[in-house]
Amino acid sequence: MGSIEAERTTTGWAATDPSGILSPYTYSLRETGPEDVFIKVTYCGVCHTDIHQVKNDLGMSNYPIVPGHEVVGEVIEVGTDVTKFRVGDCVGVGLLVGCCRKCSSCTSNIEQYCNKKIWSYNDVYGDGKPTQGGFAESMVVDQKFVVKIPDGLAPEQAAPLLCAGLTVYSPLRRFDLTKSGLRAGILGLGGVGHMGVKIAKAMGHHVTVISSSDKKREEAMDHLGADAYVVSSDADQMQQAVDSLDYILDTIPVFHPLEPYLSMLKVDGRLIIMGVLAQPLQFVTPVLMLGEFMDIPCFKRRRSITGTFIGSVAESGEMLEFCKEKGITSMIEVVKMDYINKAFERLEKNDVSVWSGER
Amino acid sequence: MGSIEAERTTTGWAATDPSGILSPYTYSLRETGPEDVFIKVTYCGVCHTDIHQVKNDLGMSNYPIVPGHEVVGEVIEVGTDVTKFRVGDCVGVGLLVGCCRKCSSCTSNIEQYCNKKIWSYNDVYGDGKPTQGGFAESMVVDQKFVVKIPDGLAPEQAAPLLCAGLTVYSPLRRFDLTKSGLRAGILGLGGVGHMGVKIAKAMGHHVTVISSSDKKREEAMDHLGADAYVVSSDADQMQQAVDSLDYILDTIPVFHPLEPYLSMLKVDGRLIIMGVLAQPLQFVTPVLMLGEFMDIPCFKRRRSITGTFIGSVAESGEMLEFCKEKGITSMIEVVKMDYINKAFERLEKNDVSVWSGER
Repeated sequence: MGSIEAERTTTGWAATDPSGILSPYTYSLRETGPEDVFIKVTYCGVCHTDIHQVKNDLGMSNYPIVPGHEVVGEVIEVGTDVTKFRVGDCVGVGLLVGCCRKCSSCTSNIEQYCNKKIWSYNDVYGDGKPTQGGFAESMVVDQKFVVKIPDGLAPEQAAPLLCAGLTVYSPLRRFDLTKSGLRAGILGLGGVGHMGVKIAKAMGHHVTVISSSDKKREEAMDHLGADAYVVSSDADQMQQAVDSLDYILDTIPVFHPLEPYLSMLKVDGRLIIMGVLAQPLQFVTPVLMLGEFMDIPCFKRRRSITGTFIGSVAESGEMLEFCKEKGITSMIEVVKMDYINKAFERLEKNDVSVWSGER
Repeated sequence: MGSIEAERTTTGWAATDPSGILSPYTYSLRETGPEDVFIKVTYCGVCHTDIHQVKNDLGMSNYPIVPGHEVVGEVIEVGTDVTKFRVGDCVGVGLLVGCCRKCSSCTSNIEQYCNKKIWSYNDVYGDGKPTQGGFAESMVVDQKFVVKIPDGLAPEQAAPLLCAGLTVYSPLRRFDLTKSGLRAGILGLGGVGHMGVKIAKAMGHHVTVISSSDKKREEAMDHLGADAYVVSSDADQMQQAVDSLDYILDTIPVFHPLEPYLSMLKVDGRLIIMGVLAQPLQFVTPVLMLGEFMDIPCFKRRRSITGTFIGSVAESGEMLEFCKEKGITSMIEVVKMDYINKAFERLEKNDVSVWSGER
C-alpha cells in the first residue's frame, strides 16, 4: 500500500540517553489510517513520570524517547472511518494509544487494564514501530484513544486533567464516591493530591488534607479550598480523625505505614493507593495494638485498600465535562516547548505546581 | 425491682486461669427482661478462638470465663416485649449480645461494627456484670441477638454456622459475590476455609483451594468438592492461575506475603482477609518485579484487600436459610459437654474438623 510507505515526518523533543536532556528529533509518523486522527499538538502537560522515563529510572527506557502523555491539540485530518471527530476539533490524548480490543477489559471499556495496551511513548505498535508522545509538533492516534476537549474548557487547562485529573476521577466514579457530602482525605499534596482536592471539592465532599508537616497548610486551605488539615505526625490530631473518612486518596510515592490512615476510615472506607512504589507497603492487623478482643479495625471494619490505574477513555470524556461544568482550574504555568529542559529541572526541584507546555 | 434482685443461677464450664482447663462453675443469670429470651443450651460449637480466650493468648481474659459463641438452644421463656420468638423455638446466639443501638453501624443494622458492641463472653454488660457464653446450661440474651434456626436445619449443624458460616457468608453478600459462576479461591483449609468451600460451592462458584502443600488435596477435592487445587509453592501452578479469580477468602492466621495471591485476582478482584494476625502482612507494588512500565498489577488493576468481621444478625438469619436450602452440612463430631477439655486438647492438635458440643 502506497500510503504506508509514504511516511511523513514530525519533529519532537527527545531524550537519546539517560542524561535527562531533551533535544530536537525528527522522526516518521504513519499516514492517517481509516481509524486515525492526525493531531497538531498545541499543549502538553509535563509530569514526573516523563522524567522517570527520560532518565531510565525504571530501567525500561528505549531511546530515543519523545515523552508527553497529557496531550492537547487540533485535529488536522481524520481517517475515512472516523466519525467522532472533525477537522478543527480540539482533542486530547492520554497515556494510552492502543489495546487488544478482544479481552474482557477491552470489551468492558476498561481498556486501561488490557494486558496488551500500548503506551503513548516508550512502547511499540503491533508492527514493531515505536510510539512517541506529545512533546512534538504532531501525532497520529487511533480515534479510540482520542477524546474531545469540551467547548468552554481552556486547552491548556485540559492538558493536566488527561492524566492527573483522570487518575483522581476514575476511582471516585468506580467506587461510587461521587455523591455530595462524603468525607474525603487527600494524603500528600503533589500534582495528583492537588487535583484530588479540586475534584473532591467540586463533588461536594468535605476535604481533609493529610500531610507530614504544617508546611502545606496554607496551600491546602487557602489556595485549594480544603476544609481541614491534619498533620500525620501529630498523634492527637490523628486520634481525633479516627473513623471519620469515607475515602483517602493516597498519593505518597514513597514508603509509608498504612495503619494510621486505615484507622481514619469509617466502616466500608477505602484507602485508594495512587503512588507507584518499589518498596513494600505494609500494615498490621492491630489486634494487639488496640487491645480489643478479636476486633481488627483495619480490615475487620470492611475497610479496604485498593487502587486504580489512570482511567478509561470513556471516563476521560466524562471527567473533562465534569471539570468544565464545575469550572475546575489548576495552578498551571504555560511555557514554550523549547523551555522543556528548564521545566524538567524545576519540576525535579518541586519548583512548580502543574506544568503545561505550549508549542 | 424485685425481679432484678431475684437472680437465678446456671452452671457452665469455666476457665478460672490460663491453664486451658475448664471446670464446672455456677453463676447468676439475670431474670428474663422485657426484651430477653431465656434459652436452654442444646449445642455449642467449639472454636479456636475459645482456646485463645481461655488461655489468655490475647492478654485480655478476665476469669472466670465460660466460653462458647456458636450457641444453639431451645427457648424456655420470653420477655413481655419479645415478638420474634416463642417458647419451644430452636434458636441461635453468636459472638455478640449487645450494642449501643444509636451509632451509624447500629442504625444501619451492621451492629457488629458498633464500637460499644458486647461480646457474648469475656465482656461486661452496661451494668458491669460479666457476660458468659454457651458452654452452659442456659443463657439470657436480648432478642436482637437471637436468631431462629430454620426448621429442617439440624441444630448441631447450625452451631458452627453461627460463626464460621457467617464469617464466610457476610463478605460474599456485602461485596456482591453471590452470583453463580464466579471463580473463588480459598486460601487455607481450616474451619473457616472448610466452610468457605462449602458455601462458595453452594453459590455455584468454581472453587480453587490454595494450600502450601499437596497434603490437603484429597480433602479439598474429594471430601469438600472443590474444583481445583493449587499448591502455592509451585511457581508454575501459581503462574497459570494469575488473573483468574474473582475473590479469595484468605483464612491463613499466620504471616504470609500477599502479592502472589493478589496476582491471582482478576481486575476488580478482592482478597478478603479472615485471619487474625499480630505480625504485619505486607505487599509490594511490583512495578520493578514485573518489569512493566508504570503497571502495578496488585492495586492498579482495581484489585483490593479488604475484610469483614463476622456478620450482622440479619445476615445470620439469611445465611441459615441459605444453608438449609442448599443442604450444607459440615463434618462435625458431636460430643458431650463434659468432654470439653479433651475436645480443646484435640482441637489444638488439629485432630478435628468442626466441633459441636452437646449438653
